[in-house]
Amino acid sequence: MSPEDILARFAATATPTPEARAVMRLSLRDWVACGMAGVDEPVSRILRAHLAGATGPSTLIGGGSARPAEAALFNGATSHALDYDDTHFAHIGHPSVAVIPVALALAEQTGATLDAMLDAALIGAEASIRVGIWLGRGHYETGFHQTATAGAFGATLAAARLLGLEARTTRMAIGLAATRASGLKAQFGTMGKPYNAGLAAETGVEAALLARAGMTAAARGLSDLQGFGPTHQGTAAADAFDGLGEDWSMSSVSHKFHACCHGLHAMLEALAGADRIEEQVESVTVATHPRWLRVCAIAAPKTGLEAKFSYRMTAAMALRGVDTAAISSFSDATATDPALCAMRDRVAVLADDGLSDMQARVTITTASGARIELFHDLDAQMPLAARTERIDRKTRALLGEARANALRQATDGAALPALSALLAGKPDYSG
Amino acid sequence: MSPEDILARFAATATPTPEARAVMRLSLRDWVACGMAGVDEPVSRILRAHLAGATGPSTLIGGGSARPAEAALFNGATSHALDYDDTHFAHIGHPSVAVIPVALALAEQTGATLDAMLDAALIGAEASIRVGIWLGRGHYETGFHQTATAGAFGATLAAARLLGLEARTTRMAIGLAATRASGLKAQFGTMGKPYNAGLAAETGVEAALLARAGMTAAARGLSDLQGFGPTHQGTAAADAFDGLGEDWSMSSVSHKFHACCHGLHAMLEALAGADRIEEQVESVTVATHPRWLRVCAIAAPKTGLEAKFSYRMTAAMALRGVDTAAISSFSDATATDPALCAMRDRVAVLADDGLSDMQARVTITTASGARIELFHDLDAQMPLAARTERIDRKTRALLGEARANALRQATDGAALPALSALLAGKPDYSG
Repeated sequence: MSPEDILARFAATATPTPEARAVMRLSLRDWVACGMAGVDEPVSRILRAHLAGATGPSTLIGGGSARPAEAALFNGATSHALDYDDTHFAHIGHPSVAVIPVALALAEQTGATLDAMLDAALIGAEASIRVGIWLGRGHYETGFHQTATAGAFGATLAAARLLGLEARTTRMAIGLAATRASGLKAQFGTMGKPYNAGLAAETGVEAALLARAGMTAAARGLSDLQGFGPTHQGTAAADAFDGLGEDWSMSSVSHKFHACCHGLHAMLEALAGADRIEEQVESVTVATHPRWLRVCAIAAPKTGLEAKFSYRMTAAMALRGVDTAAISSFSDATATDPALCAMRDRVAVLADDGLSDMQARVTITTASGARIELFHDLDAQMPLAARTERIDRKTRALLGEARANALRQATDGAALPALSALLAGKPDYSG
Repeated sequence: MSPEDILARFAATATPTPEARAVMRLSLRDWVACGMAGVDEPVSRILRAHLAGATGPSTLIGGGSARPAEAALFNGATSHALDYDDTHFAHIGHPSVAVIPVALALAEQTGATLDAMLDAALIGAEASIRVGIWLGRGHYETGFHQTATAGAFGATLAAARLLGLEARTTRMAIGLAATRASGLKAQFGTMGKPYNAGLAAETGVEAALLARAGMTAAARGLSDLQGFGPTHQGTAAADAFDGLGEDWSMSSVSHKFHACCHGLHAMLEALAGADRIEEQVESVTVATHPRWLRVCAIAAPKTGLEAKFSYRMTAAMALRGVDTAAISSFSDATATDPALCAMRDRVAVLADDGLSDMQARVTITTASGARIELFHDLDAQMPLAARTERIDRKTRALLGEARANALRQATDGAALPALSALLAGKPDYSG
């Protein structure tokens, strides 16, 4: 079977496992929190103004509504604005931002349940990851932003599932997605990066709705000789779709728990083990993979933004109990706080090429001369209960207690309107 | 200067020559006629239904209005639905369908004059052609549809001119276009082909409006190492922008006088010389540039749409007196007509790389053994007066006498509303 046949059949027939569904429910909470925390970012403000006057059945995060494709674009870009959303390393991208906005916008339009929305998002996310693997690292190295390109196909599959498209129609939708899918890594560092995520989501909605309305397209738009894959330096990895529908790659998605550069996360996770230290910390040594020293080793950051790229400052924040999950923690006041700067000056950072780039080792020496060795590997899977607890902490940090509780209730329920109301920032949930 | 700098400056400062403007005015008439004749095509009906409920300042061909980006998408796809619009061979694509919808939609929004709209469309078309040359044949051969890809940049330039963007803002718009531009040749023969033209137009409007609103993007999104060109197999032809602003490539645009793929036109013009043949035709050999064999050499078309991409069937139509200028000639009944199919089976198509892709040679052998050699070169420029007369004939054939006259008046005038009213099919012009 062609990738198009495999994917169309997957969208129509897959039954997610309870475990995959549970992870997707966490990703939904994580996505909502990232989106609600992102509504005042410049890219979100610009897109909201651009959509002024829009109307429709689909909620815009932060209030207002629009047609499904417009809402998907807006919510996709807004939820990626802080770059705090989930990541899948085999996908080489961020799955949720391209697919949840699609499932949500169309579920609101069609009156689907939250569970149906969640399954559609999961199927879309899984398809994004598998298409990302199929396109491969060569596609990414060439300059394509997998979140957007593979994401457009996942978004299309999410829409196909939600709308209950027949396999034949889904293949046409994939063909339309193939002629729309785009997104360059050259946008990194600009608003074009979150915009790319929004474009992928918009493509999913448009491709599925137009295919359902009878629009025709290339029958093998993804895999044919001049389809999306071959024209975009895809490597067509032979095993990309193995076990699709049984094994859920989305179960191994990573969530971000610190509002700073990913290169700091292994150290920060290791430092979670330092909260039992009651003695005065005399010195701290952080060992990390050499490549990170060129990315996030600002020795004495002057601003909150620079602090997001500083081992020494984020280590000090962790040791002094500042919440590194909260965006507001990364302020200029934090960067210049005397107590934090004093702790920062006790931290040394060393390269260790015996470590992978997902590992960190921290050695703390206390006033009494005790040495505490801490280690973390981000690649080690986190049990579901622990992950749930961390997501809950993150949503509290981003949204506050009241809205985080409302989010948990809304995503545990079966009906969608409570979630829509929360996203729109209705007074009941303004906590 | 980088291509981005060159293009941004061109959009801001270029003054078209009277000759280029005159050709663009003919292309505008041609485009209107193609669009109005295309409103009942399936792709147009589907998109119109998809936009149900839309409102805004910009006219949809055939009636109704929408936001500028929506109107650009709809009008771009609708005007390319019949594949009867203008072509530029160095661009390797159809310039007007991607740029006129943009200039028109934004001119209606901003209250610009018809002349300002025409200049913006011309600047966009010229940019599409130059970017098409810069991307080169390698880009096309890889599988990209230049009408859509180069067209998205031309569309962006048309919008930048119409909106009067500063060069800095136009460069951001180009960066946004770079992350949206897409379109595969694999769509040929499906509704995805006209849809591609609409996508390019939509990209132009969105990229320019979002850049004006302050959205940031890759500063050299087209030409950087991982910009659109290098990632999409562009050849970065060094002389692509030579003389930009002084020499107008758009002056050599080709208009179609047969309702089928442009690759067939040189043959059909050559076959105009065959109408004196009264004997039984035994065999026909068509020699054409090799590249066309991958574009329009469907050997035994089953539908009217496929017939538009068939040397053998269109040659049979011409030889049996079927009017290849009439859209209605390309029906499923034509494609399956026994007498036409019998003639079709006498036609052989050969590649001849001694021919340019605008030339064709036809050899006809009759029952008595006579050989008739026919040749045509589309590149032989048609004088403006002759071209005007053929465009007038074409618009009369597509729209009828009354609407064709109204079109001529509307496009000779300085105000836009008469043209908008004609496009909307208002009663005054329902001829």
